[in-house]
Amino acid sequence: MLSTMQDTPLTIGRIVRHGTGMYSSSEVVTWTGTEARREQYGQTGRKAAQLAHALRSLGVTGDQRVGTFMWNNAEHLQAYLAVPAMGAVLHTLNLRLFPEQLTYITNHAADHVVIVDASIAPLFARVLPTFSTVKHVVVANGPAAALEAPSGVEVHSYDELLAAQPDEYDWPEVDERQAAAMCYTSGTTGNPKGVVYSHRSIYLHSMQVCMSDSMGLSGADKTLVIVPQFHAMSWGLPYASMMVGASMLMPDRFLQPEPLAAMIAAEKPTFAGAVPTIWQGLLAYLEANPVDMSSLRDVIVGGSACPPALMHAFQERYGIHITHAWGMTETSPLGSVARPPAGVTGDAEWAYRYTQGRPPASVSARLIDDDGNEVPWDGESVGELEVRGPWIAASYYRQDEDGEGAEKFRDGWLRTGDVGAFTPDGFLKLTDRSKDVIKSGGEWISSVELENQVMAHPAVAEAAVVGIPDEKWDERPLVAIVLREGESVEPAEMREFLEGRVAHWQVPENFTYIDEVPKTSVGKFDKKRIRAAYAEGKLDVTHLT
Amino acid sequence: MLSTMQDTPLTIGRIVRHGTGMYSSSEVVTWTGTEARREQYGQTGRKAAQLAHALRSLGVTGDQRVGTFMWNNAEHLQAYLAVPAMGAVLHTLNLRLFPEQLTYITNHAADHVVIVDASIAPLFARVLPTFSTVKHVVVANGPAAALEAPSGVEVHSYDELLAAQPDEYDWPEVDERQAAAMCYTSGTTGNPKGVVYSHRSIYLHSMQVCMSDSMGLSGADKTLVIVPQFHAMSWGLPYASMMVGASMLMPDRFLQPEPLAAMIAAEKPTFAGAVPTIWQGLLAYLEANPVDMSSLRDVIVGGSACPPALMHAFQERYGIHITHAWGMTETSPLGSVARPPAGVTGDAEWAYRYTQGRPPASVSARLIDDDGNEVPWDGESVGELEVRGPWIAASYYRQDEDGEGAEKFRDGWLRTGDVGAFTPDGFLKLTDRSKDVIKSGGEWISSVELENQVMAHPAVAEAAVVGIPDEKWDERPLVAIVLREGESVEPAEMREFLEGRVAHWQVPENFTYIDEVPKTSVGKFDKKRIRAAYAEGKLDVTHLT
Repeated sequence: MLSTMQDTPLTIGRIVRHGTGMYSSSEVVTWTGTEARREQYGQTGRKAAQLAHALRSLGVTGDQRVGTFMWNNAEHLQAYLAVPAMGAVLHTLNLRLFPEQLTYITNHAADHVVIVDASIAPLFARVLPTFSTVKHVVVANGPAAALEAPSGVEVHSYDELLAAQPDEYDWPEVDERQAAAMCYTSGTTGNPKGVVYSHRSIYLHSMQVCMSDSMGLSGADKTLVIVPQFHAMSWGLPYASMMVGASMLMPDRFLQPEPLAAMIAAEKPTFAGAVPTIWQGLLAYLEANPVDMSSLRDVIVGGSACPPALMHAFQERYGIHITHAWGMTETSPLGSVARPPAGVTGDAEWAYRYTQGRPPASVSARLIDDDGNEVPWDGESVGELEVRGPWIAASYYRQDEDGEGAEKFRDGWLRTGDVGAFTPDGFLKLTDRSKDVIKSGGEWISSVELENQVMAHPAVAEAAVVGIPDEKWDERPLVAIVLREGESVEPAEMREFLEGRVAHWQVPENFTYIDEVPKTSVGKFDKKRIRAAYAEGKLDVTHLT
Repeated sequence: MLSTMQDTPLTIGRIVRHGTGMYSSSEVVTWTGTEARREQYGQTGRKAAQLAHALRSLGVTGDQRVGTFMWNNAEHLQAYLAVPAMGAVLHTLNLRLFPEQLTYITNHAADHVVIVDASIAPLFARVLPTFSTVKHVVVANGPAAALEAPSGVEVHSYDELLAAQPDEYDWPEVDERQAAAMCYTSGTTGNPKGVVYSHRSIYLHSMQVCMSDSMGLSGADKTLVIVPQFHAMSWGLPYASMMVGASMLMPDRFLQPEPLAAMIAAEKPTFAGAVPTIWQGLLAYLEANPVDMSSLRDVIVGGSACPPALMHAFQERYGIHITHAWGMTETSPLGSVARPPAGVTGDAEWAYRYTQGRPPASVSARLIDDDGNEVPWDGESVGELEVRGPWIAASYYRQDEDGEGAEKFRDGWLRTGDVGAFTPDGFLKLTDRSKDVIKSGGEWISSVELENQVMAHPAVAEAAVVGIPDEKWDERPLVAIVLREGESVEPAEMREFLEGRVAHWQVPENFTYIDEVPKTSVGKFDKKRIRAAYAEGKLDVTHLT
């Protein structure tokens, strides 16, 4: 028996029409270094219409891919709206990929047009000759002449291209399962892998972001979108903000602590999302340069585990509530959010806030052990996290063709590569990436948990822990410490500090000091480089007995 | 190009699994007159599983209909979960329908089983012999023996039936467009018409209810579900609460002001939803019997226009924020919610709060005039409201067969029968039901607006305004006043009171005093009975000249 409900598709076009129409006076504010340039959503809608016409004029048809090589700004938002709403597919290129990865993904996705920010046009120009499908480059926020293109590629000015177009577009009604946008994950092994979001998955995810238990965005918010638009669709913040009329504050390329503090003080956002390293940097800056941050009602931290010390520091010194969340490119990314149960306070509340949180109704989760069995949710038993749901990837783009990445999916579930436990009431405690777990004497040591404890020491700015071969125990932890300027802590002192904070047998005996923790292109700890440096004998290791 | 996202259906089964598993210690609290009986969601899930097995044992297969003739209570919630999740269709029977309407809808839906509350079993027994498809009656919350059934109908005890069943059920994965639940609208003309909700429509609607701009339900809430479960699925509150783990407070049959005040004081709900008449009654009661209502963070009022005086009284005397919303059975029902734009305060904020609010992204709206043309959103131009979206009805159940109700749909839009204007920023100001508009001298007078102004007079408990024939002006308003006990106001005095509050030409000259405003089975003003009484000369009308 079918229902009598309307079969209305869930599309980006609906978000565009609603957001730019109903909330035409909400603003997208782009930081320019010392001040802001502003645009109202009504204008954003008209520019998106012009962009769609312009892309048609460049030959974009059907579901062709339109790439963006841009910071977070008003023009990138226009592309977010126009490209999927016209039926084409938005491909956000990660500025921080290595050149050969950029070549691979642009050719793999077969981008027809790429929109490029002028400030990074020189970087783009160096890889452009390696792109085999790109016919047009559109330069935004600066002179098109800045970009030298090989023959066969036309270069256009974004502003000039749009100015010639009508500012209304009859957004077509597309199938909600059609591709809307794509994003490649920069895996640490093999080629990057493409995740293709559908109109449906983005629409449902946007609703989830606005649900009170998740990020609770509303028209009363002004969202500081720090997480890059090329990184898992900025965690869905632009589409969700537009869905409910929240204004947006876009930092463009000004992601350093000083401009971030300045834009927060000047523009008073109510909500922000970024990886822990951004907040670590901001915290250090604020200690010397106090700024009023009280406009922020909530800050979502994800992408890497959020060190408890960071959450406490922001809460206690600046009254800022940090909410820990978990997700990945393959999960759109909202997988879980740490909202403690009603009525829980004090240390118990903090214990919930340290976790990665609970998955929402649309995300099913299970933990699978090394033998492929599901492990119980008892707060202790550890397994690899697998998830299912309408905004979770089922495969990678063209996976059938090149076969890469198939091992990430099992029986309709995504294997996340994250390892942890669930409490009986459904809070996820991730302890490690499956490849980073340290297997010592038949037991697992969480490298992340050790890092958190080491970073709780006042002399430590950052720390990474990796497993190194050990004759007796198979593997033992090696702690790589980055000291705060002017501070020091001896290995023996650190060892004493850790006694009582972690199980005795987990207390490490191997220490080294490094200048900084190497990071991947998306800002995560790149531990394989530490392991490699150790293997090559490049680290000066103190071994305590 | 298809996306690489999982094609996970949006189903009630997903809500049941998630809600009863993840939030197993959230509570459903049922009021029993003077106290509460409590059940945790984990238990609700086990009982829902038992109910599903029990219904299978009674021969429920495929998408057969299971009726409920029940108040809001834990057992009704179990039916909400079990029936759709097992793939059958829940049909909530409206207790307040006239007997012949109950006969019509039960036979029209072809209910196979009906679950009945013992407290209303005698009422049910009187109509049961007229039901042609019902084979089983299950009596909940009291002895089954209380119900006499005709031959061919078996009567069961809910508790005994469930006790014999396993408490786990492997909820099947159903197509999200399949029917999940149905509800008949008690139209004022013709037979009631069935709206059939899908799993998809209910799931999406539940997400919307939890979005911050709508009702913002979260796990921190305790939802007082006053609006009956047989009335537009309790406005979606049970499914939405279960989706996020909000506890529920169910008033059962205790909907009078005194027990409502008692349960609010005892159970401290944070959120409630009910029609204006419930709040009017509670307000009057509270004036004489003050009770601490401060646990309520928000109260949604819909079903009829909310009189501004009611909103002010609750805000100023009890600190309770009333949020005005609009919807109907055909819209699941969330159609719009009055959340003022960010930063608006004082009288401007109130002006927004008086409106029916803004539709969310999933609800498209337009206004159509008598000539079928769309009218602009200028805050002035009036037309009939038409809506579109994934939780809006496209037709009525078996409409093709009996042809009734087809006039409610036009080009894929639902014609709501409500008349009003939109502000340029998308706030809906309904002025009337299209059939209640008073057409005076070529202009339209809103009967609802006049009622609100009359009810603002301190001597008036309730008032209804209808159009009566007038030789010169075609129609003129007749004001029917219900006085507060011990108060009085003369027609001339009321007329003077209205001068300056409405346009001079709208000030009425016809007044009558009645004991109460007749109500429909769902508590709305039944103005056709006032018009009929007038036509039959049964009203004592004062005509001022």
